[in-house]
Amino acid sequence: MRLSRFFMPILKENPKEAEIVSHRLMLRAGMVRQQSAGIYTWLPLGKRVLDKVTKIIREEQDRSGAIELLMPTLQSAELWQESGRYDAYGDEMLRIKDRNKRDMLYGPTNEEMITDVFRSYVKSYKDLPLNLYHIQLKFRDERRPRFGTMRSREFLMKDAYSFDLDREGAVNSYNRMFAAYLRTFSRLGLRAIPMRADTGPIGGDLSHEFIILADTGESEVFCHKDFVNFDIPGIETDFDDAEGLRAIFEKWTSVYAATSEMHDAAAFDAIPEGERLSARGIEVGHIFYFGTKYSDAMGAKVQGPDGKEHVVHMGSYGIGPTRLVPAIIEASHDENGIIWPKSVAPFDAVVINMKSGDAACDAACDTIYASLSKAGFDMLYDDTDDRAGTKFATADLIGVPVQIIAGPRAVANGEVEIKDRTTGARETMTIDAAINKLIASK
Amino acid sequence: MRLSRFFMPILKENPKEAEIVSHRLMLRAGMVRQQSAGIYTWLPLGKRVLDKVTKIIREEQDRSGAIELLMPTLQSAELWQESGRYDAYGDEMLRIKDRNKRDMLYGPTNEEMITDVFRSYVKSYKDLPLNLYHIQLKFRDERRPRFGTMRSREFLMKDAYSFDLDREGAVNSYNRMFAAYLRTFSRLGLRAIPMRADTGPIGGDLSHEFIILADTGESEVFCHKDFVNFDIPGIETDFDDAEGLRAIFEKWTSVYAATSEMHDAAAFDAIPEGERLSARGIEVGHIFYFGTKYSDAMGAKVQGPDGKEHVVHMGSYGIGPTRLVPAIIEASHDENGIIWPKSVAPFDAVVINMKSGDAACDAACDTIYASLSKAGFDMLYDDTDDRAGTKFATADLIGVPVQIIAGPRAVANGEVEIKDRTTGARETMTIDAAINKLIASK
Repeated sequence: MRLSRFFMPILKENPKEAEIVSHRLMLRAGMVRQQSAGIYTWLPLGKRVLDKVTKIIREEQDRSGAIELLMPTLQSAELWQESGRYDAYGDEMLRIKDRNKRDMLYGPTNEEMITDVFRSYVKSYKDLPLNLYHIQLKFRDERRPRFGTMRSREFLMKDAYSFDLDREGAVNSYNRMFAAYLRTFSRLGLRAIPMRADTGPIGGDLSHEFIILADTGESEVFCHKDFVNFDIPGIETDFDDAEGLRAIFEKWTSVYAATSEMHDAAAFDAIPEGERLSARGIEVGHIFYFGTKYSDAMGAKVQGPDGKEHVVHMGSYGIGPTRLVPAIIEASHDENGIIWPKSVAPFDAVVINMKSGDAACDAACDTIYASLSKAGFDMLYDDTDDRAGTKFATADLIGVPVQIIAGPRAVANGEVEIKDRTTGARETMTIDAAINKLIASK
Repeated sequence: MRLSRFFMPILKENPKEAEIVSHRLMLRAGMVRQQSAGIYTWLPLGKRVLDKVTKIIREEQDRSGAIELLMPTLQSAELWQESGRYDAYGDEMLRIKDRNKRDMLYGPTNEEMITDVFRSYVKSYKDLPLNLYHIQLKFRDERRPRFGTMRSREFLMKDAYSFDLDREGAVNSYNRMFAAYLRTFSRLGLRAIPMRADTGPIGGDLSHEFIILADTGESEVFCHKDFVNFDIPGIETDFDDAEGLRAIFEKWTSVYAATSEMHDAAAFDAIPEGERLSARGIEVGHIFYFGTKYSDAMGAKVQGPDGKEHVVHMGSYGIGPTRLVPAIIEASHDENGIIWPKSVAPFDAVVINMKSGDAACDAACDTIYASLSKAGFDMLYDDTDDRAGTKFATADLIGVPVQIIAGPRAVANGEVEIKDRTTGARETMTIDAAINKLIASK
């Protein structure tokens, strides 16, 4: 993408309304724009990151055997009256009347609707286990939306729902998602720690939050330092192997970890002092096993191998991509801007033409841009007539992992400079060497 | 995807509520499920087709130089009060009050919001032309939602918005989208005919609907038969070449074409009788040039090369993916079910195991499934224990382009049968030959 043709409105000044660094950087980098309180437009740069995050989530859901569908945003109140949550949900539920005065709502979550889908079609244990997910907008009318897309009202969520014949099957489905989540966050460049959690309005008796550590995190967390070195389930993980999944779950829940709500000071103090980790964290995922809470209320049953009807056991599993983007920034930035993990960077590399219009610089940049684009890189090419200093600042701000800098002096020697955004290291090499180095590192 | 692990709830009986064939087939094939009047869940099979349709639309928007962002579904009433459309829009607009009693609405279209985004950032003619698009849910509270997702209330739409300094630039942007639309529909397996259209509540003086011919179409259309043979702009189309784009526009508007609203009987009758085409059609896209209607009302101006402020000229360009899916079915089906064009088929091919559990059949199917998946095919593998007749009926119903049938007798000879869903032609060949034939045809 040539920057002269892209739409990336960089803000020169720090926006006053931003209380946390990710919100400030997302506004400054032209990633998002607030349209109303807690309601955002994802501008092109932000949309690219959001898409990459979503793609990784989808790939890991698919790998685990979950099946994608797409439920609508608007739901009928009747479904929620069946489960008993319509009255219980409170002011965070956006209630709507359509032109025929029917009571509708903008879905804050989808347990009711997926249970309705399930009970319409699935009648036999032979069709279980089943895990259905979608990636869809939700709305929660927060009293105080803030922190940009970290706590917005309209937000994107991946929510999966598992259906099993009994508790044992449901716990296996839970372990499957547990492993998928570890893989997902790791691929997003995050170390997420699963912490036993309260189940809140979703219900149930087994639940974990996945928390990443960040100084600016919203909640206080306590855990054993060992988490930092635990192995992430590899690409070879067999999601059909119940024992293997259970081993992963047990390993990752073998040492202490809790948010402040679930904190047990005595248990934490029992850990040797040097191995305790007390920090701030950001919740990036939440999984629940809630048994038959919805299937009972809504009559979601299957015929078992015994010929009798069984109420199915369910779980739900959420990750918020629009929340993950700022969470990644909180975990990865410096004073000059964002530092994207490779996997979610809006572009793989940026070519900076320090003297647009100079025939040699233009030719060098054109060659690099064309060669790397052809090799499958998502390239940004800063071909604008901004000053070099502005171009450097923009490249640092938007956090693209690699900068390829073509200035007139280096280009006269057939050379360019490569800068690594994470380390700041710069290296001068020939144009061909630069192209080859990037291709080799892919 | 193994069918035993997929979620594809086939209906055996014809659903009574479906008035048109696409609605009937989408319900029977388990592509969609109605949740409330005019509000649908896209089940996994439907979601796959919807994604393929959306991907083609996105690729052609990107190719034409349009830039993707994502605006939210909920909008503030204030924006629409600025443009004057808040009161004018009528009952189709879903009006909402949030917990703070602020007036919101579920966007039926986004002219106001994109104009607001534009005016916040773009100040100079140097940033023009600009075309911003998104693919997002919309809601129109139709009095009588019907025909499944053909006329639903919550629907997906690709809407693009162009910004230019003057009318000449805007007409070039219009021509650019015109060519992109011809390419898009062609890649979707459709022949769409652009017809001069009324601008309705969007406004403006230049507008075309893209109509595909289908016996079950909602509107009567009249055109010259030549359209059937006009060339589609190729992959080499230069979207920076204003003259070339104009030539495409002129060619495709050189002969008579009109919907009944814009029909001029005298002009139509002037066409030699053998060259007249009078048929039913389905609108699959609509493009508008509406000048300064919104930019005037909302103050979207840029500084021109003359140093003065200019109100920008705008256009908008819509395609509805959730409407396109049934439109494609209307145009391509037979008495046994859907016949997907290759480009949007939910799977590229289906392997039908006529005797699951038979070692030789299982081995043959496993080989074919693994080889073709590895070669990049989106494969479905019917590994269920349904009767062969049921499997054939399902494969025909869901319309996958190629069926590879492995029965015990053929497999004993190392052979399978390949059936082309479109022609019904069957051919027996060795397993290797079948794999190679598919790979060669990709």
